[in-house]
Amino acid sequence: MAQKVNIEELLKSMTLKEKIGQLTQLAPFFFKDSAKGIVTGPMEALGIKDSDIWNAGSVLGTAGAEETIEIQKLYLERNEKKIPLMFMADIIHGYRTIFPIPLALGCTWDENLVEKVARVSAIEASAGGVHVTFSPMVDLVRDPRWGRVMESTGEDPYLNSVMARAFVRGYQGGDISKEGNIASCVKHFAAYGAVEGGREYNTVDVSERMLREFYLPSYKAAIDEGCKMVMTSFNIVNSIPSSGNKWLLRGILRGEWGFDGVTISDWGAIKELIPHGVAEDEKEAARKAIQAGVDIDMMSGCYAKHLEELVEEGQVDIKLIDEAVYRVLKLKEELGLFENPFKGVDKEKEKRVVLCEEHRRIAREVAAASIVLLKNENVLPFNKDIKKLAIIGPYADEHAILGPWSWQGRWEETVSLKEGIINKIGESKVLVEKGCETEGESDAQYKESLKKALKAASEADAVILALGEHYDMSGEARSRAFITLPGRQEDLAREIIKLRKPTVVILFNGRPLEIRELYKIAPAVLEAWFPGTEGGNAIADILFADKIPSAKLTMSFPYTVGQIPVYYNHFNTGRPKPSEDSTERFCSHYVDIPNAPLLPFGFGLSYTQYEYSKIELDKNILHGNDSIKATVKIKNVGKYPGDEIVQLYIRDLTASVVRPVKELKGFKKIHLEVGEEKEAVFEITEDMLRFYNENMEYISEKGKFLLMIGPNSRDLQTVEFEYR
Amino acid sequence: MAQKVNIEELLKSMTLKEKIGQLTQLAPFFFKDSAKGIVTGPMEALGIKDSDIWNAGSVLGTAGAEETIEIQKLYLERNEKKIPLMFMADIIHGYRTIFPIPLALGCTWDENLVEKVARVSAIEASAGGVHVTFSPMVDLVRDPRWGRVMESTGEDPYLNSVMARAFVRGYQGGDISKEGNIASCVKHFAAYGAVEGGREYNTVDVSERMLREFYLPSYKAAIDEGCKMVMTSFNIVNSIPSSGNKWLLRGILRGEWGFDGVTISDWGAIKELIPHGVAEDEKEAARKAIQAGVDIDMMSGCYAKHLEELVEEGQVDIKLIDEAVYRVLKLKEELGLFENPFKGVDKEKEKRVVLCEEHRRIAREVAAASIVLLKNENVLPFNKDIKKLAIIGPYADEHAILGPWSWQGRWEETVSLKEGIINKIGESKVLVEKGCETEGESDAQYKESLKKALKAASEADAVILALGEHYDMSGEARSRAFITLPGRQEDLAREIIKLRKPTVVILFNGRPLEIRELYKIAPAVLEAWFPGTEGGNAIADILFADKIPSAKLTMSFPYTVGQIPVYYNHFNTGRPKPSEDSTERFCSHYVDIPNAPLLPFGFGLSYTQYEYSKIELDKNILHGNDSIKATVKIKNVGKYPGDEIVQLYIRDLTASVVRPVKELKGFKKIHLEVGEEKEAVFEITEDMLRFYNENMEYISEKGKFLLMIGPNSRDLQTVEFEYR
Repeated sequence: MAQKVNIEELLKSMTLKEKIGQLTQLAPFFFKDSAKGIVTGPMEALGIKDSDIWNAGSVLGTAGAEETIEIQKLYLERNEKKIPLMFMADIIHGYRTIFPIPLALGCTWDENLVEKVARVSAIEASAGGVHVTFSPMVDLVRDPRWGRVMESTGEDPYLNSVMARAFVRGYQGGDISKEGNIASCVKHFAAYGAVEGGREYNTVDVSERMLREFYLPSYKAAIDEGCKMVMTSFNIVNSIPSSGNKWLLRGILRGEWGFDGVTISDWGAIKELIPHGVAEDEKEAARKAIQAGVDIDMMSGCYAKHLEELVEEGQVDIKLIDEAVYRVLKLKEELGLFENPFKGVDKEKEKRVVLCEEHRRIAREVAAASIVLLKNENVLPFNKDIKKLAIIGPYADEHAILGPWSWQGRWEETVSLKEGIINKIGESKVLVEKGCETEGESDAQYKESLKKALKAASEADAVILALGEHYDMSGEARSRAFITLPGRQEDLAREIIKLRKPTVVILFNGRPLEIRELYKIAPAVLEAWFPGTEGGNAIADILFADKIPSAKLTMSFPYTVGQIPVYYNHFNTGRPKPSEDSTERFCSHYVDIPNAPLLPFGFGLSYTQYEYSKIELDKNILHGNDSIKATVKIKNVGKYPGDEIVQLYIRDLTASVVRPVKELKGFKKIHLEVGEEKEAVFEITEDMLRFYNENMEYISEKGKFLLMIGPNSRDLQTVEFEYR
Repeated sequence: MAQKVNIEELLKSMTLKEKIGQLTQLAPFFFKDSAKGIVTGPMEALGIKDSDIWNAGSVLGTAGAEETIEIQKLYLERNEKKIPLMFMADIIHGYRTIFPIPLALGCTWDENLVEKVARVSAIEASAGGVHVTFSPMVDLVRDPRWGRVMESTGEDPYLNSVMARAFVRGYQGGDISKEGNIASCVKHFAAYGAVEGGREYNTVDVSERMLREFYLPSYKAAIDEGCKMVMTSFNIVNSIPSSGNKWLLRGILRGEWGFDGVTISDWGAIKELIPHGVAEDEKEAARKAIQAGVDIDMMSGCYAKHLEELVEEGQVDIKLIDEAVYRVLKLKEELGLFENPFKGVDKEKEKRVVLCEEHRRIAREVAAASIVLLKNENVLPFNKDIKKLAIIGPYADEHAILGPWSWQGRWEETVSLKEGIINKIGESKVLVEKGCETEGESDAQYKESLKKALKAASEADAVILALGEHYDMSGEARSRAFITLPGRQEDLAREIIKLRKPTVVILFNGRPLEIRELYKIAPAVLEAWFPGTEGGNAIADILFADKIPSAKLTMSFPYTVGQIPVYYNHFNTGRPKPSEDSTERFCSHYVDIPNAPLLPFGFGLSYTQYEYSKIELDKNILHGNDSIKATVKIKNVGKYPGDEIVQLYIRDLTASVVRPVKELKGFKKIHLEVGEEKEAVFEITEDMLRFYNENMEYISEKGKFLLMIGPNSRDLQTVEFEYR
């Protein structure tokens, strides 16, 4: 079956129908059902014919070596030209070994760890037959109402870009032809994170400057790293849906950025040009999408049904089809599929690598590095000699802590918090009570549960309150208007905290929550996010100081939902609030809440403490291609070794357009033993000062700048420098 | 003192310093203090010298004939060229006779009433010496967190435009040289209503299409109506503060729209180019503002201190100064000030016209027409024969119901709700209890007040709950993150409603509030806004059916703050929610609340009911310059005469860019006696179909459209037509 192929020749030999097939992506059941001669509802709904199926170029959402091998075999028996299928899937934060959700991965501020996550994901997924993953999702996010913030690494374009690159490196391993590597598809192009009101699939309206300066850099970073594919977003950009947006796809992506890989629509998005109101019917949708530059139609059937006719009528230039097909075939070639359509997929290997000990170990390491200590009034770490530890709350012994987009992950393979703690200190010391549900219990049920919880807490030497959102409250199509802890959890927490035991709240959630009141009364708060397969063990590592907390938030926690959007890299306004405690009336503020979020970008505590020396600059004037070296010494003055994430921000004081009050321009994660001191050295160069001016030119301007270094975006030292 | 003047000659004769003076606006106390030889703190802070004061071209915020005459006299004695001062002031919804806040005025959907409001305002203000009012404020608003939504007529560009024109007509009366007319200054140019997070003075980011299609039309409408002045906004537009935004002022305003009147900055806004970060110092701020096209510097001192130097150094072309001064002098000439610097201002006339019976009568009429009946389960109207009526709540006998920006209005001249009701049914029938405060009482105090309130309510045959925001919770710099009823009012309402008396909640507020729970339990709800001087009488007119409710909301009431922004003329998205009760997962929605607001744009009830016939079109194809006539018959089938506001919406089904699900394109207020039927006829023309296409051309496109007619933006009949 293996063949060495000349793509140009192959392309020439293909019929128009075969070509269009390569631009069509279908779900796996289409192939299996069709092979059995079954016509299913979805096939009918999509208007997909048998011949479309056996010409289709790719599959999405296949699961495991057995199924992918089966489908590839069925396909190659039926496909005239024997062009192998390409299998794509959403491997977002792990395949079967599930890592913390991407929002938590961002909190590691550790590109090496993120690369490792992608590496492990690629190894497992490729053994399971996956060739392309729809990851990384690099949408910049400022609105925690949106459920998909869990898929992003946060609110900063620079950090998102670093992480985007790390994901791509990890998946693709530098050479996608090699076994164990998969192609990466960055998404959702573009600005899906800006959905209005945080409401899923909603309208996006941003200025071109906002788009280019904040939203686009992370997609560009992935592409610069060699990312092979780009997925268009559901939303509109400049009032045109991304999947029909020529300016975005042919103008920016291909024209300005020179991207020559494959583009693919999101699920059914081409057909959605109709409800969007820019296409009258599927035929017009197909025409607009291919002309705009979408190569592959994921699950809308528009290409399969209408491209042929459009070409024949002269409405669509065959050149557009040929170019798109060429890119698809080229990717298959690069993946080595022509040489071996079954490359990498291997039931034995799958069994061996999937969820292997090494992968579990990495998952545990990454999870521990993503857990953010938000507050700690002498509660943590716990001592392993503790006599009784009560774990209370809906997440006390919950296995559904993988988070959304972990479809190959299994709850029964997941370590719950209770299990993690028992692994650490043994079963006899642990009391577990649910206390309440995340939703849907009666008053009587709650009364009963609360009673039991209070009893357990009373008997314990310390208490863990394991609270959170129900696992199905975040992710795609899970926008929330109220972002508080659901159900009676706040009440439960209040009752337990009243007992005045050493108590830590551990949060399991997919978004920044509104936890203002709880944060005030809880002696300690640990943000565990959805931590993945090894979640329970990783949290236990943190609780008992086998790992020292080092993670820092990459998305602001709002004071309340009425403060949204709140993000650190905002503009100053003409009437900035002089300080949080200012009573100045005519300044930019709310009368009832502070301007600052509850917890700012970059914030996270540790069990140890760090002292920052004064910032030293080797010079304070930057000329042309020169650089300034900014040095700060960080000393571990606490009682635990630790990793400190040192952050560099820059502010352009005066420019031709308004500029953010600060922008992250660098960071370093530094390991420090107890008492140890190290230098963090940042090099400031002209390219860090660039922005889009009035004429949308990406330039830097001479003038004064502030350079800020510190442990988070709020608590910073500042020095001035000049760019001449 | 009177002089006939040749402006060109005058301009030529002026020194640079004198010219710059004309571009400087100061507060009245500068003149009075300087005349007394006092140098005050604000003068020092602004760096204003004596000579600046006696060259300054205009004053803002003067109060009354006596003061304006005094200042004009002092000034003319000292000003070398004897160029009269121009007095400007914020006459926003009345001068001394205060009308409902503009958001309430919008709810009248009655341009004649709004014109009358502006007319009365002009008559009173001009007698008090005012030449120019900083009104109308026509910022489109979608975020009730913003305190200044009370100054706007709402969320619709068409309605805002109609109202903008009405204000201008009313103020200017067609000829500003005539006594009793004043010049109108439209504000805040542009898009101030889009402040992010509804936080006052905050950043604005909108796409150019959003700006042109939604935000700009109302300013343009005011200018097309002959509005003499434009005030720039505090916010940025396209990342440049409006007061330094050449593209906005010289490009759009003067270039595209041909505006040749005066531009003025908002208070201190030129200096604010510094904190915005686009000017290093006041000198640069002055340079950028004059070059961008701001004629008058309101209270920042930047022009007075730096323009001279800038011209002398060749940094600013004297032509820019001359043009600006010419426009200022021209406006003074048009106002007839050169002929008579004391034109119109008259202590006797002031006494006669200010708050005269006729003006009070109009205020009462307008207030009644702006009160929106939101719910009525057989509670209203009350019968004047009622035996006991309890009025409970912080607004039961409150005189502070004028609303923000009513500085000449006086509480002691205002009719409270209690007074209005007593005027109607006599004192003996009325029980009044505060029940609670809007803020700041103790538990014990509340317990006591509640007890008294419950007693009064128990003794009454019907109950009015007079609730609201404290008067200082809306307006400028009064952004709220929580938009619920403050204090214990919801609790008070719950307790009173439990008594199951016929109960109406009357709301006094400056913004749409979050009243979801209250709306559910209250048998009747009346939105009174801040109704102005005659508020109590007007509400009583409505309560006892001397006036029949006809007003309709012009801004959506959100279901909750986490739903913001919610507005009727949104886009459809690619995955619209099939219906509010749909359980479809992958559609644009929140998991915890509906997509629809609690109360939609255009919504309002009456005591009577209207039946709408089917829409009839005289044809269903629109060609070129032709028109379609859409007719609907409306019949009053209830028991009261009434005014129905019939609304016309259009939707462009498919276009080259996404279009709103509906757009208001016409409305009619129709008076119907009981049993009467009338036709509402709308003419549909091509210009109603225009929008900005991909290339930002303002065009219409052939295709199918929906035409919708009904009583509000939600409950509409729909027919299709085609534009060929």
